[in-house]
Amino acid sequence: MSITTPRGFVASGTAAGIKASGALDLALVATDDGGAVPTAATFTTNLAAAPPVLVSREHLAANGGRASAVVVSSGNANAATGRRGRSDAEEMCTLVARGLGVPAEEVLVCSTGLIGIPLPMERIVEGIPVLVSARSGDRAAAEDAATGILTTDSGRKEVLVESHSFTVAGMAKGAGMLAPNMATMLAFLTTDAAIEPGVLADLLRIAVRDSFNSMTVDGCTSTNDTVVLMASGRAGPADPNVVVDAVTGVCAGLADQMVADAEGASKIVHVRVTGARSDGEAHRAARKVADSLLVKCSLNGEDPYWGRVASDLGSAGVDFEMDRLSIDYGGVTVCREGVAAAHDAEAVARHLAGPAIDIHCQLGLADGNAVVMGVDLGYGYIDENRTTS
Amino acid sequence: MSITTPRGFVASGTAAGIKASGALDLALVATDDGGAVPTAATFTTNLAAAPPVLVSREHLAANGGRASAVVVSSGNANAATGRRGRSDAEEMCTLVARGLGVPAEEVLVCSTGLIGIPLPMERIVEGIPVLVSARSGDRAAAEDAATGILTTDSGRKEVLVESHSFTVAGMAKGAGMLAPNMATMLAFLTTDAAIEPGVLADLLRIAVRDSFNSMTVDGCTSTNDTVVLMASGRAGPADPNVVVDAVTGVCAGLADQMVADAEGASKIVHVRVTGARSDGEAHRAARKVADSLLVKCSLNGEDPYWGRVASDLGSAGVDFEMDRLSIDYGGVTVCREGVAAAHDAEAVARHLAGPAIDIHCQLGLADGNAVVMGVDLGYGYIDENRTTS
Repeated sequence: MSITTPRGFVASGTAAGIKASGALDLALVATDDGGAVPTAATFTTNLAAAPPVLVSREHLAANGGRASAVVVSSGNANAATGRRGRSDAEEMCTLVARGLGVPAEEVLVCSTGLIGIPLPMERIVEGIPVLVSARSGDRAAAEDAATGILTTDSGRKEVLVESHSFTVAGMAKGAGMLAPNMATMLAFLTTDAAIEPGVLADLLRIAVRDSFNSMTVDGCTSTNDTVVLMASGRAGPADPNVVVDAVTGVCAGLADQMVADAEGASKIVHVRVTGARSDGEAHRAARKVADSLLVKCSLNGEDPYWGRVASDLGSAGVDFEMDRLSIDYGGVTVCREGVAAAHDAEAVARHLAGPAIDIHCQLGLADGNAVVMGVDLGYGYIDENRTTS
Repeated sequence: MSITTPRGFVASGTAAGIKASGALDLALVATDDGGAVPTAATFTTNLAAAPPVLVSREHLAANGGRASAVVVSSGNANAATGRRGRSDAEEMCTLVARGLGVPAEEVLVCSTGLIGIPLPMERIVEGIPVLVSARSGDRAAAEDAATGILTTDSGRKEVLVESHSFTVAGMAKGAGMLAPNMATMLAFLTTDAAIEPGVLADLLRIAVRDSFNSMTVDGCTSTNDTVVLMASGRAGPADPNVVVDAVTGVCAGLADQMVADAEGASKIVHVRVTGARSDGEAHRAARKVADSLLVKCSLNGEDPYWGRVASDLGSAGVDFEMDRLSIDYGGVTVCREGVAAAHDAEAVARHLAGPAIDIHCQLGLADGNAVVMGVDLGYGYIDENRTTS
């Protein structure tokens, strides 16, 4: 399984010397014939969005949702780099386009790494021709691409979903859409299903909402977050309702791998909120709990103090009535109608001692529901993030 | 200096046995003659507000902004306790009122401590008559009151501001309006200035905005946060513009003591945002930076990585243009027009090594400005908050 499993794509990775370690730091995904294919992307909402985000957004819009390649550099985010960063991002597209024999506007660009430092363009200028030449449909080349996008990740993140008539593949880097230390979240997906650009964009929006946007590591939104989905059409037309499930499956699988790899985390939590006024309010409440420092610390300490959860729900900015609230830990109800419920404390302790914790908050108001996946907060997160050096 | 320095007030504290340690856990502030005086209060915005908050809010409204006493219990928040919590809070007022010979509606009540556990009322029923009998204008009794409201605090928090014609005193507990582990923020202020209830309420709102609401420890809003200000009038009429400065001074002094006492923190940061579209937007941006896990970790690690600050400003939900941004650490500009600025790195390192860090973010858009005070995030916070036992 790899990003080149869907028909019509090639990939490659190389070490240009952006990373001092000598690890792979450039990656390419492209159509195998240089043709521009329907492509959708979602970008960070951060108003300090990095130059490559601005350039990719413009290129995709200018081409009516079609692209022939995406180039990625890791080790330097090309963020907070101003006009120079902008022209560097444009130049990366131009260099790739020259190698592929396509217009520069058909190339998207992403970068991830430290903020505020200009890209070492002399190394990238030398590296891109090597990268383009190395492109191939082979598994080894795809692995190099999946490795070349990583920064602090402990290993490659790849997912493949095969349907009866088409395939969706994905590779990613990062530890959360809302991400830790120099950890942009990037994900690249390919499919051989034939989907028009407008439908592809709708479909990716749904998939991202139900996967990457339903996880949180530390509540910080990076300057570079990007998800790109390219559709070669080689497998012929497919039912968008089936494709959306496959794309969501790939995104969710990559999201799971990111949370499992979250820097310094020892436990994963799924916060499920039901009975909210709307799905949006449920999502906001679940995210408030999953991002709460007090709740995250209590997960690390395996502490069953549900008062913190109730307090976070009450201050989440959503409709809430204390005397309708119930809270379950691992299926055991610890709070009912807003007050402590008699329960099996040993069962709760056993659940909290495990690596995956489920907290279910029933607000008892209406039908809105959502799940947000998060992690605990322990020494490990601080060790990873107190310095950038 | 003490809560009874302004003329017209008595106080007391006693150990009723709510705290297993035997420490003081009940406190009283009352007028010395049992008269109801103009009183203002601000309460938590948490929709999971505890029963004592609901009772105090109703009593104050029913009396047109007048009260004769406030009783406080510590060690148990009487929160998430439902109807029983409600009647327990009412009973505390009734018991104090009986002792003082005043209507129960003239008594306010506050509690702080663990959530979800009913108050041990049999101990409180025995303790309140002792508490009421012990009331006095003496320094020792006031110290007992200031001690009786504490939970995890390392010591009493008291401030006095003396004007030429009147005095304002305050005592508090907690480590942030947005507070850690079982750490409601409570503050009680007295003044002998004569101020009408409506003016007193306006004045307290301003003082709280510019003090307690401009600090953050962990972004969590407690179920019990309460600030009460009683005005005996014994010093005669005073200019409200002068009184507001004195009340703000007391609140700011108490806020400083809370942040300095923040559980597990080793550094204090003042995040100043200028040039925002409005003061409100500046406040939101400053709070986003001060609450950012990545920024808090970097303060702990004395890391000068301003990219995190820029990223938080860009995702604060306020108007922002990267190429207008500048960032100073301790007066040294590290980012100008959105890109890295050449600077004295040793000067920044020296500033970050100190106990008080200043970050100034100039957005360059308009005149809005604000300062939010916060703390770093290190092992200490996790140690304090991973379990409640």
